[in-house]
Amino acid sequence: MLNNGELDKVFKALSDATRRAMVERLVRGPVSVSQLAEPFEMSLPAVHQHLAVLEDAGIVTSHKTGRVRTVQLATDALTGAGEWMGRQRLPAERRLDRLGAFLDPTQGPRS
Amino acid sequence: MLNNGELDKVFKALSDATRRAMVERLVRGPVSVSQLAEPFEMSLPAVHQHLAVLEDAGIVTSHKTGRVRTVQLATDALTGAGEWMGRQRLPAERRLDRLGAFLDPTQGPRS
Repeated sequence: MLNNGELDKVFKALSDATRRAMVERLVRGPVSVSQLAEPFEMSLPAVHQHLAVLEDAGIVTSHKTGRVRTVQLATDALTGAGEWMGRQRLPAERRLDRLGAFLDPTQGPRS
Repeated sequence: MLNNGELDKVFKALSDATRRAMVERLVRGPVSVSQLAEPFEMSLPAVHQHLAVLEDAGIVTSHKTGRVRTVQLATDALTGAGEWMGRQRLPAERRLDRLGAFLDPTQGPRS
């Protein structure tokens, strides 16, 4: 589970459409920085700045082989933020879930 | 589904521990601004500022009856951000889900 400072950083990192698009790309697999930068009309320093924010938030890691830096997703931070989101579901939704489980004989305590 | 500008605002609003604590409180039900402010050691203007960020992001709505302003959660924004998070699950996790569904005869296409 992430602490408050870590959650602050993850949500802040995700509050930018370019960084979210980078995450969407990285879900499909690791890429080099230049491949990752390709779809965006921005300078390489700007790309590196976005990557630094994602890396500081623990959302990505990178390693350098020769002159190529490869970036990949580190899932714990996204999972931690997703868990926080999941806990904020309304009691009404949770009640609906339990009703669904009650009505569905293949699920839940009645199965 | 939220657009990029809306997602920016929701994630930005959630990047602050006080605002997340307010959301956690509001999940349990609507409250007055002064009740919502109680656990926090901050001025009422500061509380109103946080509420304005949450309201601008579509995470909460409020209405005034007499002199009391009541705040409640508006779920669409949180749901939309949760959906974005859900889409960023790694292919490996999705493969594990499909494997789970394959192995569990009470779920998925084999049931």
